[in-house]
Amino acid sequence: MTMFTFYWAPNTCALASAIALEAAGASYQAVRVDFARQQQRSAEYLRINPKGRVPALVTERGILTETPALLQFIAQTHPGARLAPLDDAFALAHMNAFNSYLCSTVHVAHSHRMRGSRWADDPAALEAMKRKVPQSVGECFELIEREFLAGPWVLGEHYSVSDMYLFTLAQWLEADGVDPARLPKVSAHRQRMRADPVVARVLAAEAVPA
Amino acid sequence: MTMFTFYWAPNTCALASAIALEAAGASYQAVRVDFARQQQRSAEYLRINPKGRVPALVTERGILTETPALLQFIAQTHPGARLAPLDDAFALAHMNAFNSYLCSTVHVAHSHRMRGSRWADDPAALEAMKRKVPQSVGECFELIEREFLAGPWVLGEHYSVSDMYLFTLAQWLEADGVDPARLPKVSAHRQRMRADPVVARVLAAEAVPA
Repeated sequence: MTMFTFYWAPNTCALASAIALEAAGASYQAVRVDFARQQQRSAEYLRINPKGRVPALVTERGILTETPALLQFIAQTHPGARLAPLDDAFALAHMNAFNSYLCSTVHVAHSHRMRGSRWADDPAALEAMKRKVPQSVGECFELIEREFLAGPWVLGEHYSVSDMYLFTLAQWLEADGVDPARLPKVSAHRQRMRADPVVARVLAAEAVPA
Repeated sequence: MTMFTFYWAPNTCALASAIALEAAGASYQAVRVDFARQQQRSAEYLRINPKGRVPALVTERGILTETPALLQFIAQTHPGARLAPLDDAFALAHMNAFNSYLCSTVHVAHSHRMRGSRWADDPAALEAMKRKVPQSVGECFELIEREFLAGPWVLGEHYSVSDMYLFTLAQWLEADGVDPARLPKVSAHRQRMRADPVVARVLAAEAVPA
């Protein structure tokens, strides 16, 4: 059995891959990266992931990064867990389109609240970015609510890694200034996810202080 | 043979999927979306892609969006063209990690030059975003140059859809204020891509006025 090493930090998008690893029954060791001490920028960690981000997954073949890539990889290497529609190119692309929207648009909108210095230096510009987050993240989730959450799961009847990823970003709604009451389907999805024993176990592990 | 309908616009990331469709020998009809007339925001187009973006690919099973999802889908549905390492979960994840970095980080950095109103309303903030684009896009491409472009192709000896996607975003370097001379491997990759008859054909088609 291959043993992975999984680099993660609490309150990041690494949660999606953490849930996927547990749901897959993967054999892995989790290593917490201490963002409070800027460990993601250390020379040691940059050798693992030169982007200075989490998640990163060390495999016997090499190191993988980026949530959508990790999610499909975990599903493909653990087909018995049925975490993705692996035998249907269209359904898999539909899943990946959703995951790609989360990484390139929804997560990016959220990042303008705390990580605006990636895109501007002026303090007033950073404040202007923060002010728009409730609107920009809110619009993303309204689109998900209206168009992309088939129900009960993202892909319909088939639970998949897309549910883990949506749940992860939906955890940030309150902090992003978006009232979840506006999003009844997303909110019900969150409740279903929280009630899952695997998800509850991962959240409990994440809540343990470093 | 399935006939796709491919919605695209010039000077957008749809170029990557356009090259992939041609390289795959796919059967498709291309429909140009007129951004100058804001056609991507029309009620008619929003029924195709409620995100109001290109690319979008209409298939007999439904509509797909998002470049990383389209690229893997085109490769999977045209395996004879060998556009992705389809039989190797690790290599495929490595490819998808690269594509995910392009969509979530590189393209996003670029978008702060012209599309800053997605993330702030204040005109001074939009100017502050524009000012940082040469630095933020430059840092992304330096990381690609140093870490992620195995050479001669992104994945090494195996030409793949990642090459089409890298080429697409590298086409914007000059406009983003990044001097390609700083990036010898990326520049050589661009030359190799431009010399490919399929790429040249797609670029020529794109250059035809609407």
